[in-house]
Amino acid sequence: MKTVIAGGLVWYQGSLRRLDLSINEGKVEKLGPELDRTGAEVVDASGLWVLPGAIDPHVHLAESMAGVSTADDFFTGTRSAAAGGTTTIIDFCEPQPGEAPLVALERRMQQAEDAIIDYGFHFAFTEDYARQLECIGRLWDAGITTFKAFLAYPGLALTPAALYAVLEAVGARGGMLLLHAELGDVADLLRNRYLGQPARAHALSRPAFVESAAIELALGLARAAGTRLYVVHVSSAAGLLALERARSRRQKVHGETCPHYLEFSTGHLEGPGGAAFIMSPPLREPEDAAALWQGLKSGSLEVLATDHCPFPLEAKLGPSSFDAVPNGVGSLGLRPSYLFSAGVYGGRLGLGEFVRLTTENPARLFGLWPQKGMLAPGSDADLVLWDPSATWTMSQGHQQGGEDHSLYQGMEFAGQVAMTMARGDVIYCRDRGVCAPAGRGRYLVRGLPSPILRESRGARLG
Amino acid sequence: MKTVIAGGLVWYQGSLRRLDLSINEGKVEKLGPELDRTGAEVVDASGLWVLPGAIDPHVHLAESMAGVSTADDFFTGTRSAAAGGTTTIIDFCEPQPGEAPLVALERRMQQAEDAIIDYGFHFAFTEDYARQLECIGRLWDAGITTFKAFLAYPGLALTPAALYAVLEAVGARGGMLLLHAELGDVADLLRNRYLGQPARAHALSRPAFVESAAIELALGLARAAGTRLYVVHVSSAAGLLALERARSRRQKVHGETCPHYLEFSTGHLEGPGGAAFIMSPPLREPEDAAALWQGLKSGSLEVLATDHCPFPLEAKLGPSSFDAVPNGVGSLGLRPSYLFSAGVYGGRLGLGEFVRLTTENPARLFGLWPQKGMLAPGSDADLVLWDPSATWTMSQGHQQGGEDHSLYQGMEFAGQVAMTMARGDVIYCRDRGVCAPAGRGRYLVRGLPSPILRESRGARLG
Amino acid sequence: MKTVIAGGLVWYQGSLRRLDLSINEGKVEKLGPELDRTGAEVVDASGLWVLPGAIDPHVHLAESMAGVSTADDFFTGTRSAAAGGTTTIIDFCEPQPGEAPLVALERRMQQAEDAIIDYGFHFAFTEDYARQLECIGRLWDAGITTFKAFLAYPGLALTPAALYAVLEAVGARGGMLLLHAELGDVADLLRNRYLGQPARAHALSRPAFVESAAIELALGLARAAGTRLYVVHVSSAAGLLALERARSRRQKVHGETCPHYLEFSTGHLEGPGGAAFIMSPPLREPEDAAALWQGLKSGSLEVLATDHCPFPLEAKLGPSSFDAVPNGVGSLGLRPSYLFSAGVYGGRLGLGEFVRLTTENPARLFGLWPQKGMLAPGSDADLVLWDPSATWTMSQGHQQGGEDHSLYQGMEFAGQVAMTMARGDVIYCRDRGVCAPAGRGRYLVRGLPSPILRESRGARLG
Amino acid sequence: MKTVIAGGLVWYQGSLRRLDLSINEGKVEKLGPELDRTGAEVVDASGLWVLPGAIDPHVHLAESMAGVSTADDFFTGTRSAAAGGTTTIIDFCEPQPGEAPLVALERRMQQAEDAIIDYGFHFAFTEDYARQLECIGRLWDAGITTFKAFLAYPGLALTPAALYAVLEAVGARGGMLLLHAELGDVADLLRNRYLGQPARAHALSRPAFVESAAIELALGLARAAGTRLYVVHVSSAAGLLALERARSRRQKVHGETCPHYLEFSTGHLEGPGGAAFIMSPPLREPEDAAALWQGLKSGSLEVLATDHCPFPLEAKLGPSSFDAVPNGVGSLGLRPSYLFSAGVYGGRLGLGEFVRLTTENPARLFGLWPQKGMLAPGSDADLVLWDPSATWTMSQGHQQGGEDHSLYQGMEFAGQVAMTMARGDVIYCRDRGVCAPAGRGRYLVRGLPSPILRESRGARLG
Repeated sequence: MKTVIAGGLVWYQGSLRRLDLSINEGKVEKLGPELDRTGAEVVDASGLWVLPGAIDPHVHLAESMAGVSTADDFFTGTRSAAAGGTTTIIDFCEPQPGEAPLVALERRMQQAEDAIIDYGFHFAFTEDYARQLECIGRLWDAGITTFKAFLAYPGLALTPAALYAVLEAVGARGGMLLLHAELGDVADLLRNRYLGQPARAHALSRPAFVESAAIELALGLARAAGTRLYVVHVSSAAGLLALERARSRRQKVHGETCPHYLEFSTGHLEGPGGAAFIMSPPLREPEDAAALWQGLKSGSLEVLATDHCPFPLEAKLGPSSFDAVPNGVGSLGLRPSYLFSAGVYGGRLGLGEFVRLTTENPARLFGLWPQKGMLAPGSDADLVLWDPSATWTMSQGHQQGGEDHSLYQGMEFAGQVAMTMARGDVIYCRDRGVCAPAGRGRYLVRGLPSPILRESRGARLG
Repeated sequence: MKTVIAGGLVWYQGSLRRLDLSINEGKVEKLGPELDRTGAEVVDASGLWVLPGAIDPHVHLAESMAGVSTADDFFTGTRSAAAGGTTTIIDFCEPQPGEAPLVALERRMQQAEDAIIDYGFHFAFTEDYARQLECIGRLWDAGITTFKAFLAYPGLALTPAALYAVLEAVGARGGMLLLHAELGDVADLLRNRYLGQPARAHALSRPAFVESAAIELALGLARAAGTRLYVVHVSSAAGLLALERARSRRQKVHGETCPHYLEFSTGHLEGPGGAAFIMSPPLREPEDAAALWQGLKSGSLEVLATDHCPFPLEAKLGPSSFDAVPNGVGSLGLRPSYLFSAGVYGGRLGLGEFVRLTTENPARLFGLWPQKGMLAPGSDADLVLWDPSATWTMSQGHQQGGEDHSLYQGMEFAGQVAMTMARGDVIYCRDRGVCAPAGRGRYLVRGLPSPILRESRGARLG
Repeated sequence: MKTVIAGGLVWYQGSLRRLDLSINEGKVEKLGPELDRTGAEVVDASGLWVLPGAIDPHVHLAESMAGVSTADDFFTGTRSAAAGGTTTIIDFCEPQPGEAPLVALERRMQQAEDAIIDYGFHFAFTEDYARQLECIGRLWDAGITTFKAFLAYPGLALTPAALYAVLEAVGARGGMLLLHAELGDVADLLRNRYLGQPARAHALSRPAFVESAAIELALGLARAAGTRLYVVHVSSAAGLLALERARSRRQKVHGETCPHYLEFSTGHLEGPGGAAFIMSPPLREPEDAAALWQGLKSGSLEVLATDHCPFPLEAKLGPSSFDAVPNGVGSLGLRPSYLFSAGVYGGRLGLGEFVRLTTENPARLFGLWPQKGMLAPGSDADLVLWDPSATWTMSQGHQQGGEDHSLYQGMEFAGQVAMTMARGDVIYCRDRGVCAPAGRGRYLVRGLPSPILRESRGARLG
Repeated sequence: MKTVIAGGLVWYQGSLRRLDLSINEGKVEKLGPELDRTGAEVVDASGLWVLPGAIDPHVHLAESMAGVSTADDFFTGTRSAAAGGTTTIIDFCEPQPGEAPLVALERRMQQAEDAIIDYGFHFAFTEDYARQLECIGRLWDAGITTFKAFLAYPGLALTPAALYAVLEAVGARGGMLLLHAELGDVADLLRNRYLGQPARAHALSRPAFVESAAIELALGLARAAGTRLYVVHVSSAAGLLALERARSRRQKVHGETCPHYLEFSTGHLEGPGGAAFIMSPPLREPEDAAALWQGLKSGSLEVLATDHCPFPLEAKLGPSSFDAVPNGVGSLGLRPSYLFSAGVYGGRLGLGEFVRLTTENPARLFGLWPQKGMLAPGSDADLVLWDPSATWTMSQGHQQGGEDHSLYQGMEFAGQVAMTMARGDVIYCRDRGVCAPAGRGRYLVRGLPSPILRESRGARLG
């Protein structure tokens, strides 16, 4: 069955152009000014923009923390993703204590069977890293080319030597290491000064230097190991500056931030609902958010991901001391809309940055390019029809997933997803909501991280 | 009579927002989510964006060069401006040999009487600068706060000492000096090596260093005089670099480029029609254009103007030697469309840059802010309804002015002007064309140049 | 008893000047062109330069490592210091396991009783740092204002949290923390790959990134704590670069290097005597040495110290595996001569740098200024008469201390110490050798570290 | 006849080393620790340093300005040079109005016949440059490889186009252009504001920007022409900064300053004797002098020359208006002593910088290397025996030339010339004064300018 998306402005080779786009067997077949519609189902895209489906490379579904389960499993989570224009996610395979890496992968594969969009996994090392490193070859064979290390959290935090060992092993295969950059033992030292206090203390106990010093330490080790490093959820101006300095000396390093660090700040941690805003690293000051926006514009930060890890409101607001609140918030369904509205229409970013940050860069960095991340003949027909003139207000009804609240409730958005297609299937449309069955998604065997284009029309690679 | 522009996304305080906008007596009255429409004429802007009317601060209408008159006078020129979304222009008052400054101003005032949009004048010094400086106070009183100096062209080129004298006088009043930055005597030396050759030689005779060395000389003198300098039509990477270096040491300096330097390069000077592409400074290499785009994005170049100075095709293509071709090309009617299509939809610029480069920065730099250049209560109701989904192809019919050809003929544009309003009057709409009478425009008494905002949401001034 | 040093060129206020200098009761009394010599002992300094006595702030006397005692105790070590023009040392008070800080200080005070020149102590934290921090006030009262932390060595290495706690406590009093910058656990990981190999493996097991990553980690924590940091024995270009970057963002950080990192490189670790060159951090490549010389010239490195810690040759050459060799080498008696000859006469440094690096900067940074470190009325009369035209060859006879070998054996030196005076006493002269009794030295109660002058005649402080 | 300089510390390959040096037939024959003295005249250099004879590449002897002759001709001028340790000078061949270049060269050759040390000429272009360029080949054949252009002075000042033409012609042969960098017409404009005022007005009429803007203009043209540029007598921090920026973008540009800009400032122009301090560019502020010292240390300024052009005191102090005073001051005999005393013993420079600035760099830049500028087998035996411990006070008696006054009268110097030799002849010794006959000097046919070493031991060329 063939489909023609007709009459829209298509994002192609770094520009929005008046093109039709045909789809056959789940792949993009052709792009051209006036495509033959014979025998094809025609989707009228007039007045709409046609963008590649977004990719969220940092998602935690069907997890639990401190005994509390996340609000989203793979079914509900990928439903909200689809409604927001996201057609691919990458989640984590993190072994439980004593669990062998491939057993953990098998467990995650089963949990993901309900996903309605395509998915992959990063492998997360724990303190049992030495034994886990022995399995790296089999993980690689299973399509896992990106790995994660933590410098914080009991059971997860690696020592400098462990981090170096992991970097060596990952780098030897050309893989990329994702880093949770907080010096856990320093955070613990500070946490003990604030025990029993409400949510605001969470930010005080993990100040920006806990992040930036961790980044600086890891950069030095990654440079020595020659390994590509990707710092997840950069939250502070200081952390960003550390990345930029390494970049300027040509280190292969990449940075990601999340919507909450752009939109909220420590003030949101105050008052009765403040605990809903607890995640790690914590919210920072407005100056940090401004620096992160600059980083997104300049290319210092190359990916906007969600670190989607929502909990029921009750679990967030229950504890009286900040350190007992489960860490994590949700935005899997809102990420493209947020960046489009606050970024493109908010005058901070161009369309090129929007597509690169949500879609193109994750595809390249996580070994999905050119199957995912762009609209070109042969690519998966993952796409979003975007209505550039619609406006809407966030309410519970827009969340088609499992979250029982949203930090973005009541926020106005300009620009709207009119339809989402994945491998040629309509999986969401504005009128009918999500229309894909559980289990539609497929596991993605990923390739090597590839350098990303700094400029859509330039020649510089990084 | 009151008008309400309803249902559109309005560019307000650096963002595109869902707002209605009311107009009363030619001024913006109010902006709000759902404005009262009682007794008002309602303009339906649904599906459209509402942007402030563009300002072109570098225009030459009703001029002659080497005995050839420009293709546009103030009537035809401002018609094409209106059709393209431009609602204000600033042209030049340049005395003829022996003509007193105020006599020249009177002459230009009369020539401009047919304009259909508002206009102002820069005063251009000639080699008779010493006598002209004596009248600077009266020019200032007449609303001229920006002046121009040339380092090239017989009769116009100033010596370093003359330039310094002019800078001192302009700076003493807080005015700004516009600079045509080419070392004329070096260009003459080189020109003599190519006499009799066709159009390509024009670029060879005025290489980039003729521009960059002129800029560097002028920057040194302007710094000493403490005078704000504005370099018109920056054409080369070398010239841009000179500006950026001065910026980085906090000199008050501003740079402008034009659509032709972004779109065309020396290759266009070759072949039979090459002479149509002759202007000074000349077209450069594609690498220069790429650098200029970067400059527009980074804020190193703050204004896109046209240097609109079209001649009949016959006058351009007639001479056999490059040096006999009248210098100048036209783009007054196309500037906003070009930057929107090639810049915003072309993935190079955000909306914020688009508005700043075409509208907001010229308003600030040339003393028109806040009367012109933004949509806020009390500002002139100069605005454009922009259709973000329309596409069109440039043809002769789109030029509503006096040009008999266009360098942009056949180029495809995405995004289109649906309507232009000036001081509340509809002066152009997509269906009916230009609908404003000759003489509708008014002369603008301009105030002091004001520093421009580097970031729409930042606090840095420059 | 009054002394007049007559006829020499005296280093005064950053210049070498034709001045006499009078001494009374161990203090400099006066400087002037022709001082009254009535009743004074006159020292004829014609043909000689008169420099302030050098200060070595990084010395390990009467220590033991891996059961081996250092070759120098406080008597022999300070004799060799005196012979080389060094009139003050600062050693360490490092508690043994379970030993209370003040008990350790008492022990070191007793060991130092035989010193012939003045001395002070830094306090070195061990893994028992938490308990030691409780005594910081009493250490401070005893005149200890500078402390040391290790990131390497069993029993000494601090975690990031411990380092941060120590930085907070030291910074709260305005003190300075000295840092041994090697990531010990990474070095241990690498060491295990080379066990059983000869000396060259020592350098392979502690590569430059082990140092530079440690510096970067510590810089981040020190910046957060607001504490002045002093990195001892910087050995690599990478480590130096980390310091320079922190400097360029105005962090209060200081760097020291040692003669062996300037003169020797990994090649010296090869062959039968290679183990004599084992110290930590290890020797690096010639490119690193060149970078360190540049750092000394530019002011990035502010102190040349010795890390004097010599062992008997037998102890160095005995073990067959590199990791069993006691770490440390000696140069206490040679430091000024080495820097003068290789630096000033070697064309790499000026006299200003020579005096600052060996004398003036240590005095300022370690709270001895203006009592020590310069020749001015009221300062201690610690001085060296330097013969700018003499040359000599290093042989065992020049070592007046306890070392049984020297890495510098056979090296030619230009410029020579003709006489050393300390608090007005002649403690060494070229003809008679060391002429001061054991126990002549006094313990120094030190004040706050003070910022050092970047330029002898400039106004910049750092 | 063979000579052995024995027992000194010789500057050899960037270091001061204990070596003997033998001379045969005016050339250095050998260097070694203990040379055979059989049959040789032995010069005892014990206690002395042996340095290569200094080269002054910017000297004006036997000139006249405004009808006043300089105080020094080639005989008296080279006598004072010899007494100060300078063994080579380069003066100028500047045609008089209407004089052909080769006729001018012949005239200067005759005037120089009395010189007692070796000499060369730069050719200086005048406003008759076009005709002079036709003779450049014959000047080149006569051994002139460096040329000079002025941007100031009637009859000499070139336009930008003329400067570009000269740069092209000089660059085409691999020559170097010396530039007098002052925008003459701007200086004239300012001069007219101060006519009739005393000496202080001289500095006001030629402010620093007159220099820095000229440098920036010339740098742009030289870059385009690809020609090596040497800016003479850099006097201001602004001018130096312009050079440093060009350097940092790898332009082949070199800077020279003179002793008077280091030692004196505008304050010296005040009072009755102020006019003695008039030269162009004029004296600047103490901050400028501090910047120039920094430039000498960092290598931004590569040559210290004198611009020696002294006039009788009566001629300097006679006129009542600053603009009638002949421009120029003298220091040919003092340059090495000044830089040694104020620089090396003043704590600002090392020995390496001293030798490079006075000797080694001029030799390389002006095509005299390796014949002149270093002590190595085969080089001319031009050398100075330097007494590092002597001190002396400048008085009239030390000037062995034609000057009737000195700006440096009464200044104390540390370090002294004990003997000067040129091509093996003793031409000056401390006891007997100058001992060389008129006409001893020879004309030097010079080769291509060669890049100079940035570091005595580094590998970077510039």
